[in-house]
Amino acid sequence: MRLVAYLDRNGAEALGRLDGTRVHRLPGLGRIDRRLSPKALTPKALTPEALAAMEPADEGVELDELTLLPVARPEKIFCVGLNYRSHVDETGRDLPTYPVLFPKFASSLIGHGAPITLPPESVQVDYEAELAVVIGKPGRRISRDDAFDHVLGYTICNDVTMRDYQYKTHQWMQGKAWDGSTPLGPVLVTADELDADGLGPGRLGIALRLNGAEMQSATTDRLIFDVPELIRVTSEFTRLEAGDVILTGTPGGVGYRRDPQVFLTDGDIVEVEIEGIGTLRNTVRAES
Amino acid sequence: MRLVAYLDRNGAEALGRLDGTRVHRLPGLGRIDRRLSPKALTPKALTPEALAAMEPADEGVELDELTLLPVARPEKIFCVGLNYRSHVDETGRDLPTYPVLFPKFASSLIGHGAPITLPPESVQVDYEAELAVVIGKPGRRISRDDAFDHVLGYTICNDVTMRDYQYKTHQWMQGKAWDGSTPLGPVLVTADELDADGLGPGRLGIALRLNGAEMQSATTDRLIFDVPELIRVTSEFTRLEAGDVILTGTPGGVGYRRDPQVFLTDGDIVEVEIEGIGTLRNTVRAES
Repeated sequence: MRLVAYLDRNGAEALGRLDGTRVHRLPGLGRIDRRLSPKALTPKALTPEALAAMEPADEGVELDELTLLPVARPEKIFCVGLNYRSHVDETGRDLPTYPVLFPKFASSLIGHGAPITLPPESVQVDYEAELAVVIGKPGRRISRDDAFDHVLGYTICNDVTMRDYQYKTHQWMQGKAWDGSTPLGPVLVTADELDADGLGPGRLGIALRLNGAEMQSATTDRLIFDVPELIRVTSEFTRLEAGDVILTGTPGGVGYRRDPQVFLTDGDIVEVEIEGIGTLRNTVRAES
Repeated sequence: MRLVAYLDRNGAEALGRLDGTRVHRLPGLGRIDRRLSPKALTPKALTPEALAAMEPADEGVELDELTLLPVARPEKIFCVGLNYRSHVDETGRDLPTYPVLFPKFASSLIGHGAPITLPPESVQVDYEAELAVVIGKPGRRISRDDAFDHVLGYTICNDVTMRDYQYKTHQWMQGKAWDGSTPLGPVLVTADELDADGLGPGRLGIALRLNGAEMQSATTDRLIFDVPELIRVTSEFTRLEAGDVILTGTPGGVGYRRDPQVFLTDGDIVEVEIEGIGTLRNTVRAES
């Protein structure tokens, strides 16, 4: 099943099921977040099966007519750095022995089609193609074996980064958590659907194109810490909630490490494509 | 004015005004968070003046009878590292030229009197006395001159840190964001009251006692980046919301940097005292 979050005609948030090019609204749901967790609905409300069983509330709207939102509204976003060998190599750092974790905020996120904001303060805004994991079932201290039970599905992220701010100190938050910087979407593909396609999160092609030119290309089997390991590690110290998002890291080819360096500029078009999920496409706009 | 968040007799969250030892409930309010921001109430709802004008909804309860909660429920918690010279010196690092920022989550916080959880995974749980700033009025790109207009008040934090996890990589999140680790409280003192006492956030004595022995002692005039600067810097990249919290950093004397090292153990009592605010007191309990 494919899910999208969007604004309805009244400007309210809605969650819909994508069938072909048509979006059917799932009643009573906005975005995937903690409010949808067991208390509000049933204990299984955030499983693919429970969502598939919901009756759509309308006759559907064409996807192209909708303003899309980030499909999840996370309490917590875990970004993972240096999780592809090709990216570790270009940074000149050692291979990590534990995932390198840092945050974004829900306010960092924008939907497919929304402009990536270039703030006037930064002159080094960079792209990063990433597979995003969206949690469905809450849990703490989740084992590798149980990890996939907690995943609702997968989507695409462009982990946009202000490099000049990232490296102001040895901690990266201020380079990663700019409001309105980070596209997430366009769709969430539930875990069962990805598996049914014979893909799974550990064997997806991932690529990023800047104005049509390929800048990053890899497969997710190159992740140093795979999805179950990232769930195990993050849930060791904090309970994962429905809607929480793990950004699994980016492969080599980021703009900052190129020679000459490449940074995003007003009018650029950035596309991140992940096999079995789709293409996340955003235009870059200087903040006025 | 002094505010406390607590559980009422029905187990619901309540916000109250502390008059002497008596807490008078402010109707319709739980904890200081974004839900109290302009949409829900009036544009000035989170100013000390607006809260002072509210009529208490009950005859009051003795403070000692209440289970206290962290007074704020933040969307964002900004921790600041290395913000006292005495702490920078003991770490052997260079003086920062920009605040060292990293996150905690709302789920990290506990109230005054609640047990600090020692997870079985960590053997290096440490204390850190800190002045905490609670935002009242939302804003983005706030200037130093305007910064105090956005502060609702101040409280006390023990920025409990799992050192063995903090240093697993060069990013600190996994050492800082353990669920149920971090006391915040007991009271929020509004900015006007602190100023009326001739104190202000830049001239407060701060100390930490472990089982009665003083481990940290400083004054907040030693902050390398003061409160207006921390508001300016964080609001540059993200909009500060009502209830967001800035933890301003800890002075020298943390357990990890002592010889021999000191870590928290089951049954320890940790008190953080800040002049003009009070004493935050918690017992340490090994997680069962």
